[in-house]
Amino acid sequence: MPNDCLAIALPDWATAYETATTAIAGDEARMRFAIDLARRNVECGTGGPFGAAIFSLDQGRLIAIGVNSVVRLGNSAMHAEMMAIMRAERAVGSYTLKQPRGYALYTSCEPCAMCLGGILWSGIRQLVCGAVADTARAIGFDEGPVYPDSYRHLEKAGIEVRRGVLADEAAEIIRGYRERGGAVYNG
Amino acid sequence: MPNDCLAIALPDWATAYETATTAIAGDEARMRFAIDLARRNVECGTGGPFGAAIFSLDQGRLIAIGVNSVVRLGNSAMHAEMMAIMRAERAVGSYTLKQPRGYALYTSCEPCAMCLGGILWSGIRQLVCGAVADTARAIGFDEGPVYPDSYRHLEKAGIEVRRGVLADEAAEIIRGYRERGGAVYNG
Repeated sequence: MPNDCLAIALPDWATAYETATTAIAGDEARMRFAIDLARRNVECGTGGPFGAAIFSLDQGRLIAIGVNSVVRLGNSAMHAEMMAIMRAERAVGSYTLKQPRGYALYTSCEPCAMCLGGILWSGIRQLVCGAVADTARAIGFDEGPVYPDSYRHLEKAGIEVRRGVLADEAAEIIRGYRERGGAVYNG
Repeated sequence: MPNDCLAIALPDWATAYETATTAIAGDEARMRFAIDLARRNVECGTGGPFGAAIFSLDQGRLIAIGVNSVVRLGNSAMHAEMMAIMRAERAVGSYTLKQPRGYALYTSCEPCAMCLGGILWSGIRQLVCGAVADTARAIGFDEGPVYPDSYRHLEKAGIEVRRGVLADEAAEIIRGYRERGGAVYNG
C-alpha cells in the first residue's frame, strides 16, 4: 500500500461559493448561508443535505465551509461539520481553533455523535445549529449516541450552543432530499 | 482560498510498517500490533500514544492502519481510529466497511466520543479496545461525552465490542508518553 495522501476536497461549486464570500454579519444570515450550502449540495448531486460554515467571532469573516461528502469522497467521516473543521484548522495553521479571535461553527442540522465530539476537539467557541436532529432521524439518518448530557459536556467545556436557528428552512432541505430519493448512507 | 486538497498521510515509518504486514491471526496479536503502532508513534515523535488497525474478519488481512496525527497534521480529527477508518474505506473503495467480508477495528485505547461515532458510521463489524478510557483521562486527555449507553448504541447497531484486551500493555505506552512530556492536545 503506497503512502499516497488521502485527499479531501470540496466539490468545485462549493470552492467557488467559498471564494466569493468574505464575511457575513448576524446569526440568521450565517445560518442561511450554511443552509444554502446544504441546498446546493443536494441540487448539484454532490452529497447529503447538510452544510456547515466557520466564521471568526470578531468580524464574521468566513474561514472555511464543509458540505456532506460521504458518498462523493467514499469517506464515512466526511460530514459537513468535520470537513469545515479540518479546512478551518488548515486555514488558521493549527490543530485547534482555540485562538484569541475565536470561531463559530454554523451547521444546517444538529451534529451527529461523531461531529459533536469533533466539535469539542476543534476548539470552536460557538456552535449554532439549524434543523433539529429529529428531522434527520425522521428521514432515516441515524444520529448516533447523542444525549442531553452530550450538549452539557460541550457547554461545560466553554462552548456556547444555540439550537433551532432557522430550523424550518433547514428542515425543508432535508425533507426535500429524501423526497427526491437521496441516499441515506448510514441508516 | 484555492481548492487544494486537504492531505492526510501516515508518517513514513508507519507506511513502511503497514506495507511489511499482510495478515495477523488472533485477538492479542492484532492488539499488540495496534499497541506497537502507538509505541512507535511516540518514539518517532509523530504523535500521541494511540494506534489503530483494521483487519478483515475472514483471513485477518491487514487493511489499513492509523496513528494519532493531530499535531503532526494540524488536524484535531486525526485520531488513530479516524485515520484507520478513512484509509480502510479508500482501500475497499467504499464509504462503508459494511461488506460481506466484514472488518474489525483494533484500537490501543477506548475511543473518544468522536471516534465512537465515527466507528458507528464506518460499518465496522467488530471493535476491539486495549487501554480503558480512564487511562487516557488520567494523563489529561478528555474523552468527550461517552457513556455506557454509547456502547449499547454500537451493540444495538450490530457491532461486536470487546474491551480491555492487553489493557495494561496499552496503558504503559500512554503513561510513558506523559512522562516524557508529550503534548495533551485536547485537555
